[in-house]
Amino acid sequence: MLNLPQPYLLFLGDTTEASYAKTAFGLRDWARDLCVGELSCAGGTVSTGLPRLTPNEACARGARAMVIGVANSGGLILGSWIPSLVDALQAGLDLISGMHAKLEDVPELKTTAAQLGRRLIDVRRPPRNIPIASGRRRTGKRLLTVGTDCAIGKKYTALALTRGFEARGIDVDFRATGQTGILIAGGGIPMDAVVSDFEAGAAEMLSPDAPPGHWDVIEGQGSLFHPAYAAVSLGLLHGSQPDVIVVCHERARASIIGLPEYSLPDIGETIDLTLRLGRLTNPAIRCAGISLNTSGMQEDDARRLLADESARLGLPAADPMRGSEEFERLMDACLA
Amino acid sequence: MLNLPQPYLLFLGDTTEASYAKTAFGLRDWARDLCVGELSCAGGTVSTGLPRLTPNEACARGARAMVIGVANSGGLILGSWIPSLVDALQAGLDLISGMHAKLEDVPELKTTAAQLGRRLIDVRRPPRNIPIASGRRRTGKRLLTVGTDCAIGKKYTALALTRGFEARGIDVDFRATGQTGILIAGGGIPMDAVVSDFEAGAAEMLSPDAPPGHWDVIEGQGSLFHPAYAAVSLGLLHGSQPDVIVVCHERARASIIGLPEYSLPDIGETIDLTLRLGRLTNPAIRCAGISLNTSGMQEDDARRLLADESARLGLPAADPMRGSEEFERLMDACLA
Repeated sequence: MLNLPQPYLLFLGDTTEASYAKTAFGLRDWARDLCVGELSCAGGTVSTGLPRLTPNEACARGARAMVIGVANSGGLILGSWIPSLVDALQAGLDLISGMHAKLEDVPELKTTAAQLGRRLIDVRRPPRNIPIASGRRRTGKRLLTVGTDCAIGKKYTALALTRGFEARGIDVDFRATGQTGILIAGGGIPMDAVVSDFEAGAAEMLSPDAPPGHWDVIEGQGSLFHPAYAAVSLGLLHGSQPDVIVVCHERARASIIGLPEYSLPDIGETIDLTLRLGRLTNPAIRCAGISLNTSGMQEDDARRLLADESARLGLPAADPMRGSEEFERLMDACLA
Repeated sequence: MLNLPQPYLLFLGDTTEASYAKTAFGLRDWARDLCVGELSCAGGTVSTGLPRLTPNEACARGARAMVIGVANSGGLILGSWIPSLVDALQAGLDLISGMHAKLEDVPELKTTAAQLGRRLIDVRRPPRNIPIASGRRRTGKRLLTVGTDCAIGKKYTALALTRGFEARGIDVDFRATGQTGILIAGGGIPMDAVVSDFEAGAAEMLSPDAPPGHWDVIEGQGSLFHPAYAAVSLGLLHGSQPDVIVVCHERARASIIGLPEYSLPDIGETIDLTLRLGRLTNPAIRCAGISLNTSGMQEDDARRLLADESARLGLPAADPMRGSEEFERLMDACLA
């Protein structure tokens, strides 16, 4: 488990696409009390709606660390971000990153942090001594969220299901698999940073044997239909051996994020392929329903879409961010 | 590319199961002129049939390095091997390993090698700066060998096809993806040691754009049906974007190696799932035929089995280690 300096100032870099700022949005939505404000560099157009603060202002409001709240393809710490990161250290903040690149590998940050006695904390470090997966069936119940694409609602859905299960008095743990989830939960395994031979083993380690009535709700990663990240998704699926999957989708998205030549898969195809692959380690795997991202839609339109999709697929369909009857039905199906 | 001290003494440890000594057998079969002999510890029962030599005897015959010729689940350097490894250093040999564990992380080896001026060479180190896969279609032709299990003939088949293509005057490269292949070829990427987010990107890097008539014959890894290693197989499949797959199988094997509760998949199911997943990055992917490991069978029985399987599946079936008409037909189908 991590022991992170909190609360946070959220750093948005020069991001112009909201889907790349999912760490910042995730913290705002699921750990609002840990966030004092946001900071962008020149060129950045994305905002979380939190107060825009300089590092000095954030310190004055009690912030103890600045979190890099954006992710890019490759997980790089960009040169254009460095002046803002140095500013934050000088203002008195530690730095927290979930990028593949490590803060301490940037000489300017390492030197400045050492001079000032600040911490550089990388949460995208998998544990040591991950075993090779055994394929052995574990006790307890597991739910995995699965996506038609990256950045489509797998973490939000897992967090909403965890809260919903808790509200019903169920013994449940949220199992974080990415940097944002880890920052929210205070623990987990960054699955995309695990060496591929150990990927399924890391997933087995993340959701150990548990009492029969206990649920692990596991945050999905990537997509089986993403040409770069499907290996992560498959290792997580096999090692998690879920009893239940919930498929996450966004109707407005036509193609895989950043790859216009790759069209988004159909929900039915996603269910079918996930169950086919998942049966290897859990022959009883089933799909309980659909989590649809309807952000930007009018309430009536959204509810009509959910009803239509539910009828078309013969499964409950809900948007966890709208919380409603539909979401209760989705939870019923998960727990059935 | 590597520059390895050669020839080799092959170290077999205390291995009692031939399938775990595939590095030693691979070098014997595909780089016989690089191997002067073999060495086991107490308890070891596997032999390559090469002369059994002490490190001193191997040095006297010209050996310059001892290669760890065995792999275990997890890629560990066992404590029981250390005395033999130290002996080899003292006799004048460098050490070469393809294990996940690094030779230099064993204090006794690091100290002894430093004292004596010997090299500790780990070939299971992926290159730095592997990109995230782009999914972009590359020029040139690619063939990937695919297995129903690990250690079932994917490397042998790829090497045999490479030699067969060369004999036909085709412009071809063998692309090594595991430690043994890398030791044979002198280069390649150890795909199972790559961080999972970069797995498909590493496969893209391994077989770059090439002239239209050029073939890359890519050594497969793991199996989509192995509960620990399927992530490696899927990343390699997506990044390789093969035009052609050849499915490798061993009739005598009933269950996944080391996991008796996981039965081996059917060949037809393996073809179907591989093509379904492979279409993501190459819609024109096809299966050219089957490579059957018939070792231990009489020649007549083996040829009858190959004929039966070929008829059953409607595809050429050959055992590359028997080289014959069947193998020529398999190559014809690959190149069709």
